[in-house]
Amino acid sequence: MKLAGCALCETEGGLLVFRGDKFRVIRAEEADFPAFYRLVWNDHVAEFSDLPVSERALCMEAVTLIEAVLRRQLQPTKVNLATLGNVVPHLHWHVIARFDWDSHFPAPVWGSAVRPSDEMALAQLRARLPALDMDIRQALAAMLATL
Amino acid sequence: MKLAGCALCETEGGLLVFRGDKFRVIRAEEADFPAFYRLVWNDHVAEFSDLPVSERALCMEAVTLIEAVLRRQLQPTKVNLATLGNVVPHLHWHVIARFDWDSHFPAPVWGSAVRPSDEMALAQLRARLPALDMDIRQALAAMLATL
Repeated sequence: MKLAGCALCETEGGLLVFRGDKFRVIRAEEADFPAFYRLVWNDHVAEFSDLPVSERALCMEAVTLIEAVLRRQLQPTKVNLATLGNVVPHLHWHVIARFDWDSHFPAPVWGSAVRPSDEMALAQLRARLPALDMDIRQALAAMLATL
Repeated sequence: MKLAGCALCETEGGLLVFRGDKFRVIRAEEADFPAFYRLVWNDHVAEFSDLPVSERALCMEAVTLIEAVLRRQLQPTKVNLATLGNVVPHLHWHVIARFDWDSHFPAPVWGSAVRPSDEMALAQLRARLPALDMDIRQALAAMLATL
């Protein structure tokens, strides 16, 4: 089901990393947070509790798998998971690798910066994104193949 | 397992609403967001993916149940779910009923206010908290009794 005028019904919502029947994963391309992915539910549902239990489980196992790839490849200080949807009420999960050097840490990415961006650390992180995208894509495909 | 010096190992972390073997639920008592609950994992684990799959499922079904009570009782504009843990890296899930009249909507609660607090609406919401706490407590107890 699509909703006319919904940004996540009418566009991918970012750089497409993986597309499945139920959900897709995009990279958000936020300048200060390169390792920022979003799992977007394909159907237009607003709240997590709108999904039936089997789809909630699928959704969170996919979110967990993205988190696990971020941890294994990047050893972030922390991973942040969130589904807000106040602006675009179409179910999507933010999965964000956070680092103690990033511009906002330990504040949420939605708050104010607490230090200047570390352009060298950001460039090193950006260089790893193609491999990270591929690892996420392969891990999700492998997970769905076992279902 | 407890970690010395961890705020969520050494304190409940808020007004206790429900205590289970694996997790507890507290109300955060944030002045501008009265219907703000946290599910706190009892053991000290940092990341969601540190839990085994059965505990991840239990955790998210409990989070979903809190969301469902908030929706049923309050008809919020949106529910926000998040696990960040940048400041206190002990697994806890924020479950927040958001309203189009609240001080930050549609920004996340961690951002800046976009309008003054609506004290009348807040007072009406606060008056409903005892019934909300009880509904959450009973729903979680009923869920755990079926496992």
